[in-house]
Amino acid sequence: MRIGVLTGGGDCPGLNAVIRAVVKTAIRDYGMEVWGIKNGYSGLVEDEIIPLGMESVVGILPRGGTILGTTNRDSPFRYQVVTNGQVAYVDKSKQAMEVIRKRGLDALIIIGGDGSLNIAQKFYDLGINVIGVPKTIDNDISGTDMTFGFDTAMATATEAIDKLHTTAESHHRIMILEVMGRDAGWIAIHSGIAGGADVILIPEIPFTFEKISAKIQERVARGRNFSIVVVAEGAAPMGGGQVTAGVNEGNIFNPVKLGGIGQYVQEKITTCTGQETRVTVLGHLQRGGSPTPFDRLLATRYGSAAVHALARGEQDVMTSLHGQDVITIPLMEGIKQQKQVPPQGELVRTAKALGISFGD
Amino acid sequence: MRIGVLTGGGDCPGLNAVIRAVVKTAIRDYGMEVWGIKNGYSGLVEDEIIPLGMESVVGILPRGGTILGTTNRDSPFRYQVVTNGQVAYVDKSKQAMEVIRKRGLDALIIIGGDGSLNIAQKFYDLGINVIGVPKTIDNDISGTDMTFGFDTAMATATEAIDKLHTTAESHHRIMILEVMGRDAGWIAIHSGIAGGADVILIPEIPFTFEKISAKIQERVARGRNFSIVVVAEGAAPMGGGQVTAGVNEGNIFNPVKLGGIGQYVQEKITTCTGQETRVTVLGHLQRGGSPTPFDRLLATRYGSAAVHALARGEQDVMTSLHGQDVITIPLMEGIKQQKQVPPQGELVRTAKALGISFGD
Amino acid sequence: MRIGVLTGGGDCPGLNAVIRAVVKTAIRDYGMEVWGIKNGYSGLVEDEIIPLGMESVVGILPRGGTILGTTNRDSPFRYQVVTNGQVAYVDKSKQAMEVIRKRGLDALIIIGGDGSLNIAQKFYDLGINVIGVPKTIDNDISGTDMTFGFDTAMATATEAIDKLHTTAESHHRIMILEVMGRDAGWIAIHSGIAGGADVILIPEIPFTFEKISAKIQERVARGRNFSIVVVAEGAAPMGGGQVTAGVNEGNIFNPVKLGGIGQYVQEKITTCTGQETRVTVLGHLQRGGSPTPFDRLLATRYGSAAVHALARGEQDVMTSLHGQDVITIPLMEGIKQQKQVPPQGELVRTAKALGISFGD
Amino acid sequence: MRIGVLTGGGDCPGLNAVIRAVVKTAIRDYGMEVWGIKNGYSGLVEDEIIPLGMESVVGILPRGGTILGTTNRDSPFRYQVVTNGQVAYVDKSKQAMEVIRKRGLDALIIIGGDGSLNIAQKFYDLGINVIGVPKTIDNDISGTDMTFGFDTAMATATEAIDKLHTTAESHHRIMILEVMGRDAGWIAIHSGIAGGADVILIPEIPFTFEKISAKIQERVARGRNFSIVVVAEGAAPMGGGQVTAGVNEGNIFNPVKLGGIGQYVQEKITTCTGQETRVTVLGHLQRGGSPTPFDRLLATRYGSAAVHALARGEQDVMTSLHGQDVITIPLMEGIKQQKQVPPQGELVRTAKALGISFGD
Repeated sequence: MRIGVLTGGGDCPGLNAVIRAVVKTAIRDYGMEVWGIKNGYSGLVEDEIIPLGMESVVGILPRGGTILGTTNRDSPFRYQVVTNGQVAYVDKSKQAMEVIRKRGLDALIIIGGDGSLNIAQKFYDLGINVIGVPKTIDNDISGTDMTFGFDTAMATATEAIDKLHTTAESHHRIMILEVMGRDAGWIAIHSGIAGGADVILIPEIPFTFEKISAKIQERVARGRNFSIVVVAEGAAPMGGGQVTAGVNEGNIFNPVKLGGIGQYVQEKITTCTGQETRVTVLGHLQRGGSPTPFDRLLATRYGSAAVHALARGEQDVMTSLHGQDVITIPLMEGIKQQKQVPPQGELVRTAKALGISFGD
Repeated sequence: MRIGVLTGGGDCPGLNAVIRAVVKTAIRDYGMEVWGIKNGYSGLVEDEIIPLGMESVVGILPRGGTILGTTNRDSPFRYQVVTNGQVAYVDKSKQAMEVIRKRGLDALIIIGGDGSLNIAQKFYDLGINVIGVPKTIDNDISGTDMTFGFDTAMATATEAIDKLHTTAESHHRIMILEVMGRDAGWIAIHSGIAGGADVILIPEIPFTFEKISAKIQERVARGRNFSIVVVAEGAAPMGGGQVTAGVNEGNIFNPVKLGGIGQYVQEKITTCTGQETRVTVLGHLQRGGSPTPFDRLLATRYGSAAVHALARGEQDVMTSLHGQDVITIPLMEGIKQQKQVPPQGELVRTAKALGISFGD
Repeated sequence: MRIGVLTGGGDCPGLNAVIRAVVKTAIRDYGMEVWGIKNGYSGLVEDEIIPLGMESVVGILPRGGTILGTTNRDSPFRYQVVTNGQVAYVDKSKQAMEVIRKRGLDALIIIGGDGSLNIAQKFYDLGINVIGVPKTIDNDISGTDMTFGFDTAMATATEAIDKLHTTAESHHRIMILEVMGRDAGWIAIHSGIAGGADVILIPEIPFTFEKISAKIQERVARGRNFSIVVVAEGAAPMGGGQVTAGVNEGNIFNPVKLGGIGQYVQEKITTCTGQETRVTVLGHLQRGGSPTPFDRLLATRYGSAAVHALARGEQDVMTSLHGQDVITIPLMEGIKQQKQVPPQGELVRTAKALGISFGD
Repeated sequence: MRIGVLTGGGDCPGLNAVIRAVVKTAIRDYGMEVWGIKNGYSGLVEDEIIPLGMESVVGILPRGGTILGTTNRDSPFRYQVVTNGQVAYVDKSKQAMEVIRKRGLDALIIIGGDGSLNIAQKFYDLGINVIGVPKTIDNDISGTDMTFGFDTAMATATEAIDKLHTTAESHHRIMILEVMGRDAGWIAIHSGIAGGADVILIPEIPFTFEKISAKIQERVARGRNFSIVVVAEGAAPMGGGQVTAGVNEGNIFNPVKLGGIGQYVQEKITTCTGQETRVTVLGHLQRGGSPTPFDRLLATRYGSAAVHALARGEQDVMTSLHGQDVITIPLMEGIKQQKQVPPQGELVRTAKALGISFGD
């Protein structure tokens, strides 16, 4: 059997560990041939495909990023073509299927988020078997208990909170950390609890500045004249669509353009509390670096499981962590909905029991 | 309600996070009073008990060890007493129950391994309610999917493997790392896969030096003239009880006294392969340091859950991670057997698919 | 002898190590009494002064921040007073001297940057002996080879570059990291070389976007279609005062308000090269966290040396690293000028020999 | 000009950074050709020499070890030859010079410790120009203020002390850490001060167990019932040559064979104090891993400086850190003596002022 493997969407710690496990398992256990598709789906369209032997994956286990390259915007079904400076979007899926046939690929292993896995499904519908490996540092794919990369991102965010703590305490300041999470607050709540934050703002729970200020004042009253606020980039104030929608009338402040929710929260808290406040946007640091041992292991298990699934003849499935077991589930079932932090769930309850405010 | 909390057995990253969550949840959510029992069960016998208020737990979340102190040998039911240099073991459980009554403790939260939790059960049988929080860096308690401290220990072991890799490769050597795991190979197999080891030796799978040598020779044949061997302290050669039993007749080498299984494996591999071989015993480094964010969160959830369980009126239970949920299960059910690495399970199969040898 | 110690200005990894060394050396070696002045110079004005015994400094060596607290704006000679919402600046130096006399302090150890040390000199002129300990993460104090805190900040910046590398390479992007350094590029050049940056922009060397683009294009030509740019916050384009001066006429972009030089450089490079570009502002993360061993040692040596200097009867000096030795030099000589990166010096030449562009 | 570069002796963090800087500087600045000699001097004898282009050094800056390989025992002047199982030592220097001529190498850059640099001098005497780059994690080369690799080793040792602290404190134990340093105590004293050790034992200061016990008892008297002891592998008790010389008559204990000075100190302290004591031998972990930013920078400066020296026509010199400057000095002057910790110097005095005992 000859399989192709590609990485799609934003980079994520552990991608190389998946690739390595795919290559090693396929060659050692089954004598398959593995080909690497470069730069996400665009490598399928452009026929940028390279053989992956045992030597190709030496030393990549602890390395972040992906040796195959990746892109964020590369659907062959709506492929960006620039002609004389004009941008057009064209269906290149037939060209991609042609490449697949020409290269003799029997199946694809697609390592990606819901965008990349939805495209994978379309290729399956066109007749090529696909196995998905769910990837997102946001941990918001419903079909798996954990995605690889999340533990690393969460650890980076927690380390940042640890660092901000010393400044907050020494300067009696409010330090705000903006972390990733456009639709789900997993990084914010995990790192916020692990780092000992005082306020955690997540997309799942609309907040008010009154509640945030009340928490900060409660701390001041107890002699704790500093606070740590962790805010997911997708968090929003109650009723506050304007925060992500653009300029407020009668208000020169536009959080979207000026620096996102972190800066918005900073300005508002400064106004509400009168305390010195600083914001840090963690940004790309969350995607980078060597994966944690947890992520290296999970990514390795996923990669190996994807090949075993292929060898068993499974079709159109994705790997999934279910409790302590790695299993496979139907691909579309795995990504049909986003996994959000349950606002009444144990995590939020635990956080609240510790005195953490969600601004609600 | 007035509760006592104690930490028993070997220290473990995350103990302070549990204590902090117990104190915060008990005081904030339920207005309970919390008392800390010092130095494991001996504090119960000696009446070394201190009040734990909100201020007591400030800043301890990221710190290793336990602010309460701990000991390894302290059962009140077989308490070590030294009189005129003579050691005797005495049942001091009545004295401990007397202290509990005098202090007005309504329940105990016991953070410990199977030893400490078995003692907890005996106190429950004497009439004091107990809630257990399972603790072991070895991850070998059957009643929970994960114990806190394990992720930190595993990360320390993985980092050590990363470091040994560069020396192994530069010097064309075989580097052996002895990690903890007297009865179960969890640290060895997790860190071994995450660190890219070539050979992993665990108590669950007896090994032979022939198989280990074969693996090393296979690598040399492929131009990889170095290897990394991770060995759990409880691993043993097939039929090889003598390794932990003492001096071999007709053989001056005694692995128990000289440095454990790591050194034994080193000498044997040197003999079998003729290659330069070095051993490192990771030892106490695995118990120390700041807990990983994963462990801080798990420990916090356990501590909070223990108090919620008490508040709900539960008795004689322990907290447990079940999939992604923290639940409670009957205490004795939780610790009735050790959790070992299944020799035919997915983890071992994944490792073997990657080419890792278990010496079997 | 009774000495007061205070920390002034922005927080910095190693402050606690200095305080600890001062306390231990003063008490153990000389039987001095040590008092801690809280929140920088404002503690002198407000008489917030606490005794520091051996117990006060237990466990603080590896901790960031300062147990004494600090502020950025607190000169007793121009002290901010708010009355009925009106801000006024008043000379409170007499009040501070009164506190010093009342408390019976024989000398002050001032741990601070050039701002705090200039104020120290004024107190010396008023008749109280002072010993300065130079502190800045920017490493820009001329009187010492190295300041503590710099190694930690530089390590944090280097780790960030390591993380951005994997994203840059996987996505074929230009990643920009803005680091501290308003007047001197030490963090940028050290971390840039240590992290393998392609372009380093520092205040000492005005840059042009033509030169930066040329470097990026040269890399693309060699198949390296990603680049890492490290920019100190005080870097500026040749002739480009407008970057830090405010809004450009006929241009809605204002780098000062919108996000500093990092964002400005990002927008310009995107325009010049057409490549995807992302910016990360490291900000307060550089000030926080546990000091590196190097900084813990240097800070400890400074603290101990300051007390020895006092005991020897020295006056109006500051501690200084000179080669491998910690010595003392006259205070005003130590801070009379800023130490900048020599544009023709060995560091810049080394960087250029490696192919790093400074945009000049 | 065509230059050869080799790495000799034990591996050390930063070797790859030197190689990279040599290659980049030589090719970019001077159009030289660079050849890599594999596995230390044995590559010169065996003619294992590979071209090093710009591509060879991509991505190696943050990686430990050496891409060229190294060995500890490889002097061409006393080369180990095994014939029919018989080991003989033969002068192969002519063969090596023949290889140098055949390959057309105009000069050698030797990255190594005093052993490798002494051999370098012999090659210079035979007529080939050599430039030395001093390398040792022990920091004991007199001709330079700092060697690269030392900061990383010291950081690893300090991190280990941090980890042992939590166990020591939680269990009221004495924890002993054996670190490298056969002839000089630099790692022990730097990491001991940075990690807050209570006792530091170094080769330069003979110790007695009475003094060590007194220090431990003094701590117990102050309620600090745990202690951290850092011992360099070459430390020895006063008058105690037998510790490193072999078996004591009338004494079954032999520290050399059984586990070195760490275990010896453990047994003795246990006997003297009656307290629970544990030993950890850090061993090879100190040589491995990614170099600290400090070491990456120093190694890069050395590599670049070595090439500049060649280009300037210098002969028989080694690179050296002098204060903040990298300079060159005559090779034999640089290594003529070992640099030891001055027993009356500032570092030892600082440590003693903090209350640290050296057992003297």
